[in-house]
Amino acid sequence: MTFVRNAWYVAALPEELSEKPLGRTILDTPLALYRQPDGVVAALLDICPHRFAPLSDGILVNGHLQCPYHGLEFDGGGQCVHNPHGNGARPASLNVRSFPVVERDALIWIWPGDPALADPGAIPDFGCRVDPAYRTVGGYGHVDCNYKLLVDNLMDLGHAQYVHRANAQTDAFDRLEREVIVGDGEIQALMKIPGGTPSVLMAKFLRGANTPVDAWNDIRWNKVSAMLNFIAVAPEGTPKEQSIHSRGTHILTPETEASCHYFFGSSRNFGIDDPEMDGVLRSWQAQALVKEDKVVVEAIERRRAYVEANGIRPAMLSCDEAAVRVSREIEKLEQLEAA
Amino acid sequence: MTFVRNAWYVAALPEELSEKPLGRTILDTPLALYRQPDGVVAALLDICPHRFAPLSDGILVNGHLQCPYHGLEFDGGGQCVHNPHGNGARPASLNVRSFPVVERDALIWIWPGDPALADPGAIPDFGCRVDPAYRTVGGYGHVDCNYKLLVDNLMDLGHAQYVHRANAQTDAFDRLEREVIVGDGEIQALMKIPGGTPSVLMAKFLRGANTPVDAWNDIRWNKVSAMLNFIAVAPEGTPKEQSIHSRGTHILTPETEASCHYFFGSSRNFGIDDPEMDGVLRSWQAQALVKEDKVVVEAIERRRAYVEANGIRPAMLSCDEAAVRVSREIEKLEQLEAA
Amino acid sequence: MTFVRNAWYVAALPEELSEKPLGRTILDTPLALYRQPDGVVAALLDICPHRFAPLSDGILVNGHLQCPYHGLEFDGGGQCVHNPHGNGARPASLNVRSFPVVERDALIWIWPGDPALADPGAIPDFGCRVDPAYRTVGGYGHVDCNYKLLVDNLMDLGHAQYVHRANAQTDAFDRLEREVIVGDGEIQALMKIPGGTPSVLMAKFLRGANTPVDAWNDIRWNKVSAMLNFIAVAPEGTPKEQSIHSRGTHILTPETEASCHYFFGSSRNFGIDDPEMDGVLRSWQAQALVKEDKVVVEAIERRRAYVEANGIRPAMLSCDEAAVRVSREIEKLEQLEAA
Repeated sequence: MTFVRNAWYVAALPEELSEKPLGRTILDTPLALYRQPDGVVAALLDICPHRFAPLSDGILVNGHLQCPYHGLEFDGGGQCVHNPHGNGARPASLNVRSFPVVERDALIWIWPGDPALADPGAIPDFGCRVDPAYRTVGGYGHVDCNYKLLVDNLMDLGHAQYVHRANAQTDAFDRLEREVIVGDGEIQALMKIPGGTPSVLMAKFLRGANTPVDAWNDIRWNKVSAMLNFIAVAPEGTPKEQSIHSRGTHILTPETEASCHYFFGSSRNFGIDDPEMDGVLRSWQAQALVKEDKVVVEAIERRRAYVEANGIRPAMLSCDEAAVRVSREIEKLEQLEAA
Repeated sequence: MTFVRNAWYVAALPEELSEKPLGRTILDTPLALYRQPDGVVAALLDICPHRFAPLSDGILVNGHLQCPYHGLEFDGGGQCVHNPHGNGARPASLNVRSFPVVERDALIWIWPGDPALADPGAIPDFGCRVDPAYRTVGGYGHVDCNYKLLVDNLMDLGHAQYVHRANAQTDAFDRLEREVIVGDGEIQALMKIPGGTPSVLMAKFLRGANTPVDAWNDIRWNKVSAMLNFIAVAPEGTPKEQSIHSRGTHILTPETEASCHYFFGSSRNFGIDDPEMDGVLRSWQAQALVKEDKVVVEAIERRRAYVEANGIRPAMLSCDEAAVRVSREIEKLEQLEAA
Repeated sequence: MTFVRNAWYVAALPEELSEKPLGRTILDTPLALYRQPDGVVAALLDICPHRFAPLSDGILVNGHLQCPYHGLEFDGGGQCVHNPHGNGARPASLNVRSFPVVERDALIWIWPGDPALADPGAIPDFGCRVDPAYRTVGGYGHVDCNYKLLVDNLMDLGHAQYVHRANAQTDAFDRLEREVIVGDGEIQALMKIPGGTPSVLMAKFLRGANTPVDAWNDIRWNKVSAMLNFIAVAPEGTPKEQSIHSRGTHILTPETEASCHYFFGSSRNFGIDDPEMDGVLRSWQAQALVKEDKVVVEAIERRRAYVEANGIRPAMLSCDEAAVRVSREIEKLEQLEAA
């Protein structure tokens, strides 16, 4: 199992958490996630130090998480604060591992690695999710593939022309202009599709207008697997800044070597009070991300054994430049930790 | 796979067996179990020596088990008594392995190890199950965990305070008195809970009486994994001998390294003609054993890979004394066989 | 994984294929099978050389198979004929492996090994399937066992007396006459059952006649796992040539080490325009092949781990002569390729 452990990962959406704990595995590590009475989120290893029972099946008692098996109680930092047995001794061996948590931009970020290295300043910016100028809708999906297959998928948004053809196909695909911008721990892939008929989805953004448009389809990657895309459309010739657009959260968190969590969202700067537009974006997410992309990448995951046994190497295309650069960055991070 | 093979295990309840064979795996060994026309139970390896077909899918023909694939017939000792092919030769290679069986105390005991060592005198006493002074109700459950997790569970009945809180929580838990008695191949954990309000279950035993009670919650272990507990209740100050009580069968048999069979029962000395009390105990078994305990131990089993990969050792509590002693006894038995 | 790769295998029935590709794995190799607009069947590795997406989820565009992920297009020989990205370059690394295909006798034969060795002349004869003097009904089944367990099954049709007793049991089983004929890459097992009452199935063939009959039950094996049987019945003393009979297709193709495809059929020389007789044979196939045989061989497969861990060798009977000879031929073929 190769994971980059010293990094921030999203483990949950805020609306998934309450005083009733959520059990969720990230990077092969089972976590119990819950909100303490003061609202602060805690993340404990979901394994009681005593008999290894799942703390996430426990309940909060006086703000402390009680193990469902024999009643040990833990505070949000993992310290055992109550042992109901015998003389009630609480040696250090009864403490459970806790993980650094930051709730920011309507995302629950967890640091599964060395806590001493956890710098909240390194969390990438997803401020659009809580910006009042935007309206955000989103959700959670589970995908049975290594998270890198979805990183590859997202770093070339040109796949939409085929995988999401019912909604996203454009007649200007052959005039696509691409640019890749490499920063420090951040890579951007920019796409402009000039002068096409609006795709089915873009036509909905434009409420049915059907004049030639320029469209943009950019995506930004931050280590290890947090992406933010930018889907925009405007009448042909309009400056990009004046487009209507949606900034899309696409954050992946490894669950196991062959499965991952997908936290997605769309933050739009138009029709922000229009529930019908919420519906357009929710339908798109349900169809494109949780269905169409999932089918492709899970099928690729199932081919892994054959591919590896036969030593097949992927044949890269020009559209893969950003994905290849990201892939090398992730490998560097892996090697750094392995060293 | 580490199993103690030279020992008696329960493979079935009498009511599960008839002339229609039952296929059941114990200690990774597939068995065909059936009742011969004279009522005597036979246990054969569930693998025909010819083409490895499951004998348990066969039928009894003249009291002999006929292989469903090519019709070889076997007696209860595993000897091939009919070969319908060619000249009908029956070399010794056509015999199938049989296992020593003892039907006693309404339990079907099997010896999966060396038959020369099988001494029926070593079968632990579960006579209460057939004692006319008692009424027994019980059943069978399948649990996806190593059997030792359930042994640990049962050897500290204090877990009931948490796992079975809806029925068994007591307000006198902090006055619990414990004693562990170590015998030869037998370990007992005794618990007295003095002067509490009856738990929900004890109140049902007492038909609703609600005066302060003393309660007892003892369990006896016999190698390898046969336990008999003693749940008793009486008005505070009553001698234990005068309590009303239920003696509980809790016998585990490994199926695979990560699954086991659970044969349970309750033999009570009160309300023995009362079908309503049967219902109370059946409900308790269905809720506590097959649901609540199962959920906990299966979750622990799923954490095994993480625990082993990370070298986590359980942090023992004072309530684990009996469980730890039993665990060491089982390890000794394993080492004895491995030597 | 030991497979004989340099051989013809049936990968599909003609009616399973259309312009909509079928994804099917044979010998651990995922294939995309489809019919090109000219009707010719193509078989490509079901893994796009770019990102390993399943080509079988793609669509035909201008007669070429388009990858569902990024739109590369391939001809029936596996050559990439269109790359919609960048400058559209199509280096040889974009070609996908194709497999030799022959459609013959209403069967789609594939050669998964070295294409240079693929000689269509080596395909065994199943001409009865398309002979106008015969009526053929058949289908496809999936079985969770190594294909050799079904070869063993079929090479001793005497198993019908037990496995298919409801339809095929005969009161003359003890007068069975057997002969085995060994040819070059072909082995035949002949069975004659003289002077019995017709079995339930034979009585249906004979439309209820109930006089003593001679029955024949032969099977021919061709490497690696293509079998054709011959079930015949006639009034006692009639020459075999004048019998009414059904020639049965029983072709197995490994999917994985522990699963296989079963292509079956029945080509009869009687009642060829009688839909009721179609029903008799379809019922027999559904009951005997896809249900009764499947249950036995899948149970045997599940016993493999125990059998291998305990070093158990099958005890052969006289009825296994043909099966043993076939088994040795397959082993020889395996060793030849391993060398």
